[in-house]
Order: sequence, then structure tokens, then C-alpha cells
Amino acid sequence: MEKQFFYEIEGNAKSQEALLLGETIFHNANGYIGIRGAYEEGYPPEYISIRGQYINGFYDITDMKQAEALCGLIEKKQTMLNIADTQSVEIWLGGEQFSLFYGTAKEVKRSVDLKKGVTLRKIAWVSPEGKEISLQFRRMTSFVKLPLFLQEITLTCHNYEGEVCLISSHFGEAENFCDPSDPRVAGEKTQYLFADTPHCQGDISLILAKTSRSGLSLCSGVAHAVPAGFEKQTVVKDKKAVHKITGKSVKGKTLRFYKYSWFSDSIRCGNPEEETEKKLKKVMMQPVEELYGEQEEYLSDYWEKSNLEIEGDEELNSAVHYNQYALLQSVGKDCYSNMAAKGLSGEGYEGHFFWDTEMYALPCFTITRPEIAKTLISFRYRTLNQAKENARKLGHKRGALYPWRTINGEECSGYFPSGTAAYHISGDIAYSVAAYYLATNDVEFLCEQGAEILLETARLWVDMGNYVDGQFHIQDVTGPDEYTCMVNNNYYTNLLAKYNLEWAEKCKELLMAEGKWEALSKKINLLPEEIEEFKKAAENMYLTYDEALDINPQDDSFLKKKKWDFTNTPKENYPLLLHYHPLALYRKQVCKQADTVLAHFILEDYQKLSTIRNSFLYYEGVTTHDSSLSTCIFSIMAAKLGMVEKAYDYFGESAKLDLFNTHKNTKDGIHTANMAGNYMAIIYGFAGLRIKESGLYLSPCIPDRWKSYQFRFQYRGTRLEVKVDKEGCRIHRLEGKPVEIHLHGSPVLVEDDIRLYKRQEDK
Amino acid sequence: MEKQFFYEIEGNAKSQEALLLGETIFHNANGYIGIRGAYEEGYPPEYISIRGQYINGFYDITDMKQAEALCGLIEKKQTMLNIADTQSVEIWLGGEQFSLFYGTAKEVKRSVDLKKGVTLRKIAWVSPEGKEISLQFRRMTSFVKLPLFLQEITLTCHNYEGEVCLISSHFGEAENFCDPSDPRVAGEKTQYLFADTPHCQGDISLILAKTSRSGLSLCSGVAHAVPAGFEKQTVVKDKKAVHKITGKSVKGKTLRFYKYSWFSDSIRCGNPEEETEKKLKKVMMQPVEELYGEQEEYLSDYWEKSNLEIEGDEELNSAVHYNQYALLQSVGKDCYSNMAAKGLSGEGYEGHFFWDTEMYALPCFTITRPEIAKTLISFRYRTLNQAKENARKLGHKRGALYPWRTINGEECSGYFPSGTAAYHISGDIAYSVAAYYLATNDVEFLCEQGAEILLETARLWVDMGNYVDGQFHIQDVTGPDEYTCMVNNNYYTNLLAKYNLEWAEKCKELLMAEGKWEALSKKINLLPEEIEEFKKAAENMYLTYDEALDINPQDDSFLKKKKWDFTNTPKENYPLLLHYHPLALYRKQVCKQADTVLAHFILEDYQKLSTIRNSFLYYEGVTTHDSSLSTCIFSIMAAKLGMVEKAYDYFGESAKLDLFNTHKNTKDGIHTANMAGNYMAIIYGFAGLRIKESGLYLSPCIPDRWKSYQFRFQYRGTRLEVKVDKEGCRIHRLEGKPVEIHLHGSPVLVEDDIRLYKRQEDK
Repeated sequence: MEKQFFYEIEGNAKSQEALLLGETIFHNANGYIGIRGAYEEGYPPEYISIRGQYINGFYDITDMKQAEALCGLIEKKQTMLNIADTQSVEIWLGGEQFSLFYGTAKEVKRSVDLKKGVTLRKIAWVSPEGKEISLQFRRMTSFVKLPLFLQEITLTCHNYEGEVCLISSHFGEAENFCDPSDPRVAGEKTQYLFADTPHCQGDISLILAKTSRSGLSLCSGVAHAVPAGFEKQTVVKDKKAVHKITGKSVKGKTLRFYKYSWFSDSIRCGNPEEETEKKLKKVMMQPVEELYGEQEEYLSDYWEKSNLEIEGDEELNSAVHYNQYALLQSVGKDCYSNMAAKGLSGEGYEGHFFWDTEMYALPCFTITRPEIAKTLISFRYRTLNQAKENARKLGHKRGALYPWRTINGEECSGYFPSGTAAYHISGDIAYSVAAYYLATNDVEFLCEQGAEILLETARLWVDMGNYVDGQFHIQDVTGPDEYTCMVNNNYYTNLLAKYNLEWAEKCKELLMAEGKWEALSKKINLLPEEIEEFKKAAENMYLTYDEALDINPQDDSFLKKKKWDFTNTPKENYPLLLHYHPLALYRKQVCKQADTVLAHFILEDYQKLSTIRNSFLYYEGVTTHDSSLSTCIFSIMAAKLGMVEKAYDYFGESAKLDLFNTHKNTKDGIHTANMAGNYMAIIYGFAGLRIKESGLYLSPCIPDRWKSYQFRFQYRGTRLEVKVDKEGCRIHRLEGKPVEIHLHGSPVLVEDDIRLYKRQEDK
Repeated sequence: MEKQFFYEIEGNAKSQEALLLGETIFHNANGYIGIRGAYEEGYPPEYISIRGQYINGFYDITDMKQAEALCGLIEKKQTMLNIADTQSVEIWLGGEQFSLFYGTAKEVKRSVDLKKGVTLRKIAWVSPEGKEISLQFRRMTSFVKLPLFLQEITLTCHNYEGEVCLISSHFGEAENFCDPSDPRVAGEKTQYLFADTPHCQGDISLILAKTSRSGLSLCSGVAHAVPAGFEKQTVVKDKKAVHKITGKSVKGKTLRFYKYSWFSDSIRCGNPEEETEKKLKKVMMQPVEELYGEQEEYLSDYWEKSNLEIEGDEELNSAVHYNQYALLQSVGKDCYSNMAAKGLSGEGYEGHFFWDTEMYALPCFTITRPEIAKTLISFRYRTLNQAKENARKLGHKRGALYPWRTINGEECSGYFPSGTAAYHISGDIAYSVAAYYLATNDVEFLCEQGAEILLETARLWVDMGNYVDGQFHIQDVTGPDEYTCMVNNNYYTNLLAKYNLEWAEKCKELLMAEGKWEALSKKINLLPEEIEEFKKAAENMYLTYDEALDINPQDDSFLKKKKWDFTNTPKENYPLLLHYHPLALYRKQVCKQADTVLAHFILEDYQKLSTIRNSFLYYEGVTTHDSSLSTCIFSIMAAKLGMVEKAYDYFGESAKLDLFNTHKNTKDGIHTANMAGNYMAIIYGFAGLRIKESGLYLSPCIPDRWKSYQFRFQYRGTRLEVKVDKEGCRIHRLEGKPVEIHLHGSPVLVEDDIRLYKRQEDK
């Protein structure tokens, strides 16, 4: 069991690919800061490194010229910044510098300890001149003290006595990664951060850096704790502070060095420099073991609440744990941040926040750490005004259109047909408000923030849609599937709009019961007839349906297109988006990802089971899963439809995506939505969890290969543990009031202790 | 009558707007070179001038970065270059320099003489010190010697005797116009042309300049002829050759100076420098009066063949003549060039060739100067291979997709939804091949070039379309209307595709009769079953039709959209494209221009008259005419439908567009398609000319205001003159065999002399 919380790789990875992959996989993050797992001592210059450190929500603005200027097209965007480099430490033994790229590495192990919340790099090395040493690098970004990044270097010289010197640097003007040969990342170096000369306070170095255009600033502070007998000296060179730590080694004696990095930014505090200095000094007074202890305690609570175990599938169990951990590392912990598509592990998608948050991450957090879910929604509430402005730019007289991709709430999508046109993001955010409320019953949050989101997004739909033969149509939008753009009546979008409108109406009742309705409707100038409009549009929402196939077509014209010629598409032409012009894709029946199938998951009661089944089978035949957001949803729906082994296969693909780099771009960062989806594939997939207005639902099934699986979650204050094996399902109430569960459709009250149920036969 | 061939403006125009407008209106061009009508002596530095000289088809390549990189999106484009500046001449009288911006201009007249083919600028000026002079600048770009630009400066000093000096310069590295504040033109200066040091041969200066990326070169040569007693001296400064011409004035005596500019480019000749020198020397041997004579003779033939007169509407008559002349100035005279959207009069649309050529210019030239029409089609034939490659890039296994905008045959459209997606351009080109053949019976050209175009474009349609319930559908294209993009079954596109496919089939028969079929089908590997495919697709082509309204909807979903809220759209928000996001436009029923209405004009026999009438009225209600290609078509169709006064109003709007700068962008160049459309509005509109397989059709009507109108055209070698007045219509055979005309539907043979018919009552 323990091993599965400890992800380890052996071998002296000197390949370029492995180094970049390792930087991602072994990154440290806590939702506020993220540090890629580059080697402290660096690589030789011929190696590429994406040596990045990031702060969630901290950005600069950059131009994004359009090839042809059209009114309203976005011409500047936010980009997440690579901030100061504080992780570098060279180690010198006499005249020899430690490096894995020369000498002899007898042992190299990298791991991440998911319970302790640290990464480790353990090395046994012999220098070219024969000095034998053991080295360990332990790194931690604290979940308890978010601005803290701690590095511990443990050095044992086995046959060398003499000078040991650590050159630890602190550089204030790191640059974002660029690669002129890869069109998916920046092509040219751009300096976004301008640093003041480092400022030294004793042996603390502080660097204040300002962004070029966003008006933000950031202070990074670095300090060290060193073994007795070692001396510290700090030198400032240009924009760099260099800490030189020197002393002598004794054979067999272990030397332990600590490097503390602390970050404060102007988004969250008034005086970043003062704050950094004060907090850095304070944290250095605290015993290191206490810092480690806090971290372990935090994680112990996390695993306690979201524990998930698969018996009989060690590799995937381990992968799921890693994914759960990476998700916690990625997700923002305050309303100034959110969860980037790549978390804080790399520069892919420029640190932008997408719908991934609402439709993938939130369903995980609402049932394990609902306060995180609430914070994520708060970010959307905080940026509601920008969403309203965005709607005006798109010609809507009222309502809020959330940006497809953003850091500060403003749209950053340069290609609107598969960006801004994806209006469903507003529906997704509204859905997440309802989902959070249903899981938590947090009516206070609904009154304070959620309802306003529901009402402004509902306004968007009535402004943009129109009635055709009495049915409400939504024209020219892009659904989740980015291989089909700018279509009419995308099923997913229309269904979500319907749900959004229904909830706008519902929240009126809920707020009236709390006495909060009048104030809110006054605040946003909501007219009584608007609620009528919402109701009418929801009731008459047009949802595509094809009688002959008994499926919901993805949009009005999807079934009229030719199917993609999969037979004559060579393997190397996937993902298709890198090999075919958008028009060639749009014109065919081919899906990048779950679209209607996703709608059938999140809102399963809006159509017959036969339609859901037929749709699943139909779309399965035309979906490439080129998006990392796809296989997890297909897994969930296969499980629902009784195709358990198929669900298992999809689940496996999803679980391995980053650890096995199956999409070949993990170097640019982890795929957070997939990680969340992977977790969902167990809870919502195999276990069939649903949280609806009518209550809690479970319909567990289990893949052949597994002996059992168990997980914990919470629902309206009650914490439950579910264990599923070949015999059936046990539900254990851990905490809170008794709760009713619809188990395979039949209501059962989970009272005091443990109950055991025979598993129903697969449908 | 004469006055209408002489467009004149009086007054000393010193306003910025008037100067830029004058540069366009009084430009000189001959289809090969174009010189904007800047003042020889320049403007003060605070004035903006688009001081341009252009060569049709001569371009460089420039980057066009996409905001988001997607596979196949265009990232470099061609741009027409502002070549050497040869038009500058300063005039010094003793220490005083002539300029309209100081001293006293007693008279200033600018005109273009449409019969002589020259522009004139006549000035009576008194210098600050009181020198009274008369000046005339006469400029000509020769239609007979295309590389020649001739300037004649006539100077009379009335009260001054003393030194007269002309500083005539020749600068080899002109730059394209840029304006950082206007997103529609280049924002930054880019040096495209790199010139060698000027090379002087006696008093001839030659400058060879090379483009930065397209690998083209150009030689410009300048020489002068001066009055007896004047001396010439040439000095080279950097990239400039300065010709200083000095002598003495005698009171009342007229001095006459000639500046010759000659251009040769590497597209058309092997050694541009040698060619320029040789030809320039040769042309200087020819008496100037002979050069003027050739020009007048050329134009006399043009007016003889395309003469068009409106009696009773002097202003519009004059505008139509100007438009006819500008069209002749704009159109390319060899297969290396075509007709740019702005002709050779400015840098708008970067000198790109669009469908304007086929659907607007060609219908004028096929009936007046068919050899020009043939040359225009030859350009498309020459670039057929690029069109085939373009189709491959878009994922088509066969066929040719012509670029939406191009100079060298490669796509330059940076925004594909209203660029590359406008597949109708391939249909337009195919249509023009058929139209040229029908008007000329030139079966030889069909065999040599036309048929291959018809077959390769036909292949595109069968590759891209698919059958739905037995009908052939075409998905995800953009029709002529750019306010509605990426739709299914655009009526215009589908109808043109049908016609294209029918003609592909027809050309087989025609070529078989000539014994040319086998060779061609072998050359392009055409399989016999492909002809069957063409036939089947044409026969089963799906054409939208709405029974209730009895109209052809613009596409599958057009009628399902909300109508644009015209009532609440302020006047200053037109053109809409400058004030609304594309999505806001796409989602509504609003048209930039004629789309279905244009299809009803060019292929009127494919639907009932009632459908044509209802469609016209329907689309009239939702069309903004924000495109300059629209009012002319609405005029034609209003005339066809008996709404003669409405046709007259549309015609008037079209006629005045550039001369009255009604679209406010004539500074960037004339609107050639509109000028052609304006001519069409008379011949195809009021006179109802149609050329079909079944023969020649005329259904003349006349607006109330006009006393009469008459025009000349040719049809299969027969030249005819038609005169329409309130009484009826006279047709006069000028040349060629007798021909049958369907006059108001009834066949009549136009034999020897003149026949007179009573006009039918309006339908």
C-alpha cells in the first residue's frame, strides 16, 4: 500500500526527453507556487531545460497580432510568467563540480512522496578524480505556508576530506521558455520581468521584480541554513544574488544544507518586499522538522478525506494516487487564482484557466475538499464583471460570457472559432455553481456569489438565442468538440443552457426563502419578466434528436457530414489537429473529444437510456480522443452502460497519460483535467456516483481485473467510505448525519455503521 | 458629349482628405504600371501622402503570424510593392520653389482626359516674391508601351526672367504605405526592395532593385528631354539619382520638359536592366506627339467598342465613363497579372486578386475586349497547379481550390472563415470559363486552357461534397456574403458547383468534337467514372428552398437566425464589420452583399421568377451593402424584376462610390469590382443582356430620368449597338454576321441594318 504513495523512477536519466519529462513529473507545487523539477546543479548547455518557477494568477500581458484584423478579435493576452530562478545550487568538492553528466553515477533515484509531500533525488556518485559521495535533494512546496519552497541537500563524502562549496544562486529575471521550431510555444525570447538589483539583508537576498505591462510586482527571497563550521557569503552580480557556502567535509559525516525561497506578489499583498523579508526570517526560526510535519499532516487530512484504493491493479492504483496528488498541487487556493490546464508544472497553454476547472476539477473537489471547490467558483465570481464586458464586446445587450481562456478574467483566445465561440463555458460555470450547491447545501454561498453567476449566464442565453417554430435555438457556437466549430444547436451547449436557465429560476425560490432575492435582483436590475423569459426558453429549448438512430446529434448538421476516413489515416497523423486544416476537420464527422457523451454524463436524466447508449456507440466510432479530456468521460459512460471492460480500457488510457507521456507533450506540463477525469472515472464511472436534486446515487460495478476498490467522499457534511468488490458494495458512514443513497436505483438509508449489499447484475 | 469624357475638379485642394482622394482618382495606369496622382513637387512634411508606383503582379513576401497557430493556416502572404519613385520633380525659379502650399494659386484644375488617356494639372500661380507663372503637368501611362510613364511639364513665366531649375529625382527604394493608427493597412515600415547604386548612362539613370524574399527584380530607368538652352546634370546620392535641369526663362515663353520613366521586371524579361536601357533610349527617339497619338488611337478603339452613353443624366454618364476608363487602367494585359481589387491605384487589399475579376470585370470585357477576358482566364490557368496544391492543403484528394486572395497564385488569406472557406471562387472561375466561351465561341481556348480549369474545379466539388438522402450537399463554406461564414449548402456555392459540374461534362463533348478530349483526360488522369460522378452530383445538387416564403434561403440555417436589429443600429456603426465582432454578425440574418441575389442574376434559369422576386425582396431587407460589390447587383436584379426606379437608385449609389468617396476609403484605391458592376448595371441590368447556351437575350427598360441610353458590345464576332429610349429599342449591327437576339423573350434576327422595336410594358 505504502509504495503506491511513492512514485519512483530509477536510472541515470540523461536523455533530453527524460529530463524534460522529469521536470514535469517531479515538479513541486501547492496551488500557489510551482517549481519544475530541474536539477539544482543544472544541465550541460547543449541540453534544453524548461527551468521554470511559477505563481498561480501572476501574469504579464503580451501582444497577439491577428493575421487579419477584425473587429473585436483579441490582440493581447495574459501569459503566466517564469518568475525568479531560486532553485539553482552548484556543488563543488575541491576543484570538482558535481554533475550527473560526468563522473560515475552509481545510483540515481527520483521520487515523489505523496504522503510527505516532497520530491527526492537520491544519488550515489563518484567524481572523475574518484571522490565518492552520496547526495540527496529533498524539495517541498508547503501546502501550509504557500509562499515557501524548501530545498534540503544532504551530502556525505565517503572518501574525501577537504573543501566543500555550494554556489547557490537567486536570479530575478528568468524568462519564459521559447522554441523557434515549435509553433505551440513562444518562438522568441521576451523579457516580461524587470528586476531591481538584489537587496541583501544579512545573508538573505531579496529581489523585487516588476512586470512590463500588467503592473504587477513580485518579491522573491532566498536564505540558507548550513551545517556548523560552514560560512556564508553573498555577492550581488547584476540581477543575481550568489550565495557562496564554504566549509570542510569529514569522511562519512553527513552535511545538511537548507535553501529557503519565499515569494510575495502584489496581487495578494501590499508590500511584497517587506512581506517576504518578514516571513522568510520567521520561517527560518521554525524547526525544519515542523515544516515537514505540517506538510505531512495537511496531506494526511487530504488522503483521509479522498482516500481511494484499487486492489489488484498496483500500477494504475499508483497512477491514480499520483494524479490525485498532482491535482492538489495544481489547484489555486485563493480567489485570485484557479487551476491552469497544466497546473503549475509547465508553460503549456500559458498558464491559462479553461472550462477544465468546472467540468473536471470541481466534481472531484466538491466531494472531497468542498472549500477548494468554493474558492474556484469565487474566482469566477470575482471576474464576473469582465465576463459581462466580454458579452458586450460580442454584441450581447445583457448577460455574462466567460472567457474561453484567461488568467485575470479577460479573454485570451486568439482563434475565436474554437475559443470565444465555445459559449458553453458560461453554462459550465453555471453548472458548477449548481453542482457545488447540490453537494454541499451551501445556501449562503449561493446567495452571496452563486446566484448572481446563474442569473447573468442565464441572461446570456436569452439574449443570444431565438425561437424557431416555438423552439429555442442557439446559433453559431462551438461545443466541447473542437473538431466541429461554429455550429447551430450544439446538443451539449443547448442542454447546459437549459439547465442554466432552470437553475436561474430555481435560485429565485432558494434566495426568496433566505430573504435575499430582492436585494440581489435590485443589484443586477433583474426584471420580473426576465425570470419568465428564462422559464420559457428553458421549457422550449431545442435539443437535437435523430429518430432513426435514436441519438442526439452533436448539432444541427453533424449527421449530414461525411464520416472521417479513419481507414486511410496513418497513425502518425494523430492528433489530427497537427496534420489537417481546421476546415478539413470541421467538414467531417470526427470528434476530438466527448461532447454529446459528456452532456449525457452530467445531465443523464434529460434523455432516454437507449438514446444515451446509442449515442455513446455512435460517437465512439468517430472520436479520436486527441483531447486529453476525452477518454475519462468515455470510461464513465461505458461503466454506466454496463460495458465495464471497455470502461476499464478507457480508464487505463486516461490514468497513464502523463506518467507514460502518451500524448507526447507532458514536458510542457501535466494534463490536470485528465487527472481529475481519471479520478472521476472511478467515483462517477465504476461507482456510478451522482448528486442530483433528488439525492445521492450509486451504481457500483467493478472491472474483472480488480479485486476491490474503495474510496471516501463527502456529501452535505456526511463523510462516507464505499468499498466495492466482486461480492457487492459496503458503505460506511465515517462522520456526519445519516444519509439516504439510491443504490442501483433503490433508496437505502446509510445510518450508523456498515451495510453490505449484493451487487446487482450489470444492466 | 465631349465633356463627359473629361473628368475635372477645380480648386486648390490643400485638405489632407482631398489630396489623398486626388492621388487615387487621378492615378495613371495601363494594367502594367500604376502611378498614384501625387504632386510632382511634393507636399509639406506634415501631410500624409500615399506616393505610390506599382507594377501588376510584382510582389514581395511578408510574414503574417497567426494569433494561434493551427495546421495549414497561412502565415506568409504576397504584397504588391511600391516600386521606385520616379514622379518627383521640384521646380525652382531663382531662389523660390514652386509649391501650391505657399504663394498664391490663382487657378488649379485637375482632370483626366478619357479619350487622350492623360491626366492634367493646370496651375496659375504667383510666388511669394510675385513671380507669375502658368504650369501644366500632363501624365500618361501608355497603353501601347506598357512600361512607359511619361510626364510633361509646361512652364510659362509671365513676369520673370532668370534661372529656372528642375530637380527631378529617381529613387529606387520606395516603401509601402504604413499607418500605425489604422489596422487596415500595414502598421510598420518594412523595406521590401533593395536597390543597387543608381547606374548612369549619359543622362539616363538606371536603378536595379531586388525584393527581399520573392526573388524578383525590377529595373527603373529615367531620362529627360529639355528645351534648347537647358543643361542636364545627373548626380547619384545613395540610392537616388538626381537629375538637375537648369536654364533661363524668357517672359511669356513656354518651356516644355519631358520626363520618361521605363520599367522592366524579372517576371517578364530576362535582363531587366538591359531591357530598360534599350527601350528607354528607343522611346526617346520617337516624337512625343506620336506617343500621345498611339494612346489616343488605342482609346479610340476602346471607346468605339465599348461606347456607352446616357442621355439625360450627365453626372452619372460622366461617372460611368470614368469607371469604364479606370477599369481599363486596372486590368492586367498579360497572364502574369490580373486585376487587383484596387487596380493599380493604391495599396488597399495589398494588390491582391479576388473573385472580383471573374464575376465583375470579366462580364464587361467578354463583350467589349474579349482578348482581355481571355488573358484574365489565362492567369488562372497559369496558377492551376498552385490551386491544386491548395486543395491538397485543405485535405482534398483531388481537384483545384483557387486562393481567395493572391498575386502569384498562392493563398494569402489570413482569416480563413471569410477567406479560404469561400470555395465559391473556384466555381466563379469555372463560370467565367463558360461565360467567355459562350460569348466568343472560342473553342480553341477552351481546349487549351478552359477545359482543364473546368475539370479540376469540378473534381473539387465531388471530393468535398457528400450525399444526404440522395442529394448532394456542400458543407462548411462561405458564400459571397461575408457576414455569414462557414455554413452548409450556401445556395450560391451549390448552384455554381452544379453549373461547374454540368460544364465539366459539357466540355467533354466539345473537346471530343475537336479531337482534343483524349489527350487532356490523359494529361490530368481523368477516369471515365469521374464524368459520371460529375453528372450525378450536378443532377442531385441540393439547392435550398423555402416553400412558405418561396425563396432560396442563403444556406441551411439562414432563416433560423434572428434578423439583425437594424432599427437600433446607429448610422455611424456602418459598415458593421468595423463595429461588431464577426460572431455577432454570423449569428444574425444580415448580409454584407448580394449572395443569393447574385446567383439569381448569373444563373437565372435555375429557379422560378416568383422565387427570384421574393428572394430579392427578402434579401433587400437584410442587406447592408457594406461591400462595394453589392448595389450594382441589386440594381441589375431590380431592373430584371421591373423595379426600374429602384434599379436606378442602386445604380446611382454604385456609380458615385469612388468619385464621391461614399465608402470613405477611396484614398486606398478605386473599387474596381464596383466600377465593373456599375457598367454591368446598364448592360445586364437596364438592357437585360444575357448570354446563354440558347443565345443572346435583351430585355431593355429605361429609368424615368433618362432620355435614352446606348451601348456597344460584341457577341461571337458580331458587334452591335443598342439604343434604348422611351419609345423602344434600336439594334444596329456594326460588324460581323447577322445574329439572333431574344428581345423581351422573342427571337429576332438582327440582319443588315437597323431595326426598331416597341418596348414591352414592364413585367
